[in-house]
Amino acid sequence: MIINTLSLMLAMLPISGVQGPGQMPGEGTPASTNIGGAQYPRVTSDLRAIFRIKATDAQKVEFAFFTPKRYSATKDGTGFWSATTEPLVPGFHYYRVFIDGAEVNDPGSETFYGTGKQTSGIEIPEKDVDYYLPKDVPHGDVREQWYKSVTTGNWRRVYVYCPPGYGKDRNGRYPVLYLQHGSGEDERGWSNQGRAAFIMDNLIAEKKAIPMLVVMEKGYASRAGETAPPGGPPRPGQAPPNMNRMFSAFEDVVTKNLVPYIDANFRTIPDRDHRALAGLSMGGMQSYTIGLKHTDLFATIGGFSGAGGGFGGAPFDAKTAFDGVMADSAKFNKRMRLLFLSIGTAEAPRMQDGVRGFRDALEKAGIKTVLYESPGTDHEWLTWRRSLHEFAPLLFKRR
Amino acid sequence: MIINTLSLMLAMLPISGVQGPGQMPGEGTPASTNIGGAQYPRVTSDLRAIFRIKATDAQKVEFAFFTPKRYSATKDGTGFWSATTEPLVPGFHYYRVFIDGAEVNDPGSETFYGTGKQTSGIEIPEKDVDYYLPKDVPHGDVREQWYKSVTTGNWRRVYVYCPPGYGKDRNGRYPVLYLQHGSGEDERGWSNQGRAAFIMDNLIAEKKAIPMLVVMEKGYASRAGETAPPGGPPRPGQAPPNMNRMFSAFEDVVTKNLVPYIDANFRTIPDRDHRALAGLSMGGMQSYTIGLKHTDLFATIGGFSGAGGGFGGAPFDAKTAFDGVMADSAKFNKRMRLLFLSIGTAEAPRMQDGVRGFRDALEKAGIKTVLYESPGTDHEWLTWRRSLHEFAPLLFKRR
Repeated sequence: MIINTLSLMLAMLPISGVQGPGQMPGEGTPASTNIGGAQYPRVTSDLRAIFRIKATDAQKVEFAFFTPKRYSATKDGTGFWSATTEPLVPGFHYYRVFIDGAEVNDPGSETFYGTGKQTSGIEIPEKDVDYYLPKDVPHGDVREQWYKSVTTGNWRRVYVYCPPGYGKDRNGRYPVLYLQHGSGEDERGWSNQGRAAFIMDNLIAEKKAIPMLVVMEKGYASRAGETAPPGGPPRPGQAPPNMNRMFSAFEDVVTKNLVPYIDANFRTIPDRDHRALAGLSMGGMQSYTIGLKHTDLFATIGGFSGAGGGFGGAPFDAKTAFDGVMADSAKFNKRMRLLFLSIGTAEAPRMQDGVRGFRDALEKAGIKTVLYESPGTDHEWLTWRRSLHEFAPLLFKRR
Repeated sequence: MIINTLSLMLAMLPISGVQGPGQMPGEGTPASTNIGGAQYPRVTSDLRAIFRIKATDAQKVEFAFFTPKRYSATKDGTGFWSATTEPLVPGFHYYRVFIDGAEVNDPGSETFYGTGKQTSGIEIPEKDVDYYLPKDVPHGDVREQWYKSVTTGNWRRVYVYCPPGYGKDRNGRYPVLYLQHGSGEDERGWSNQGRAAFIMDNLIAEKKAIPMLVVMEKGYASRAGETAPPGGPPRPGQAPPNMNRMFSAFEDVVTKNLVPYIDANFRTIPDRDHRALAGLSMGGMQSYTIGLKHTDLFATIGGFSGAGGGFGGAPFDAKTAFDGVMADSAKFNKRMRLLFLSIGTAEAPRMQDGVRGFRDALEKAGIKTVLYESPGTDHEWLTWRRSLHEFAPLLFKRR
């Protein structure tokens, strides 16, 4: 018997019930970070977020970004709970829902690996700004690769942005930016939340940046045979006891596994002048720590909302810091092509003090730096998109 | 003032509180689909899943796969709710949590786009089976590309698996398998849930399949200027009124946008003999519908747990079906290289009847087919991993 299999095909794969009739369009427009067809969350013309979730039998539903503030939701007659925020700063914000004490995602949102897990995110549009959006320009690609790390003894995933033309140009060789995520995020962050590929495509199309590879790896590692850091990424405020061990393992991953792998498998210009190491927050700290220890590999270092540090509370001493690599500032300035730092002007004072203090100490010691300040943004991805947008044009230019 | 920024970097990026002290290791081992460091869900030696989530003030917590059965969780003194399943069939299962009537993800799990949204998934290991795991063999890569579709008028994302050596071999040209996901899933499904890249890497290493490109696109489309299907992917059991319109738009995307884009941007062998179109469930139906209408483009068609159909309840008539392309069975058999179908033996009877009935009708009309049956598996990804593993070795061989 032949039956019409059309409805079967549609019926057999499970569909969750998260989008019911309660999801009628209201004020504003669906966020660009929503899953296909999800009407909520919505963003109003004055940049408020309207959240909405079905929780028929819940007693209490709250929405929140990753700040202490919670938005109490109110229930309508159909079991949907809604909350509206104040006007928000543009950019990408992680958010979450609390349902009777359970911290979960909003099923209407795409998920983004951040905050130590897959998390909801909402994009608040930025008026007249399109440098991180897909445009009618040549596009590169982002390649998911798996490679075996001798240091960790397992398979690691790395994403490599290849600029437009890389695939067709069979002989050209390219400089490489190694670009790290922050604590609680992973190797997917720069592509998904950071829009790194679109930023690079657009900069390259405008000839503001030269074509380069961008390598995005995971900033966590434990040596083969050693126990992984408990709970994976470090928890807030508490460096795991084996933090130094994890960072040291990651240093080896970068310098002994990753750089050789990339140089062997991509058409790179395999020298220090054409290699940069940068990252955000924890990734910025890793970049300074690893980069300044391996100036034979990297002539450019960037730290977005995070850079030096790790002096154990002692004052910074340029003669001894980072194994004394800066002791002769004139020599160091000549050897390095760029030390870049950035900070959002709305970041917490402690964070600003940390980055600015480090920068001031470097300058005082005669070390040249470039500081970018992102107006009005916090410790969030818009600060880092802007930082990449400022940083990339400075890279790999002729001396 | 210089302060130690180490703890700052770790503290400033938000970390969710989902992994608390209640997450102490218990019986079994963490599922491979968990986020890094998450201790739950766990899989026991007899393949039960132990789920666990924090929901301090909830009245009722249930876990469920995408079947009617729910697993009632019980609460301990620390606000964690746990449930244990019966022994499970190996493979990848979507699952969900109900917290006081809200259907959400398990924060301990990675998320996978399926069931019309980002969804939790758990991998139940299959003893002595490793064809879909990363092995010490040469690895290809999966490239995320964005291209502008003239048909839909917007940017579409496509993933392209390139076999090992593709990047270094500068002249070789490759056949292409176009591989579609099912209803409620998207272009990420075959890589993430399906492990398509590892399956191909391993088959190619064993010389069981010849090196090929695998193109994975999204099976939803609406024409420029037309409204997108409401709610995105079709809802279960109810084909949206504009289903035919959506499928027709997708047909144009594949034949007029995607195939030309791939042929222009990758080193393909751009002829019908070296092009296959296959998919699972809804994607299988799309493959048969589009493939049989465009035999000038595709000489091979595959449908995993879904194939023909769409006869409006009328009996299948080989003389008229698919615009009569099969009317002369001898000629058709000579023209086509392969019609492949598959089904899991644990799938619903209606689904089995649909696929087997279609196959029987084809055979009765003198049309050659190959049917693969996946022992003991349902309408789930293990059926489709196995199907790809059986299908790929049959592709693009010399006649």
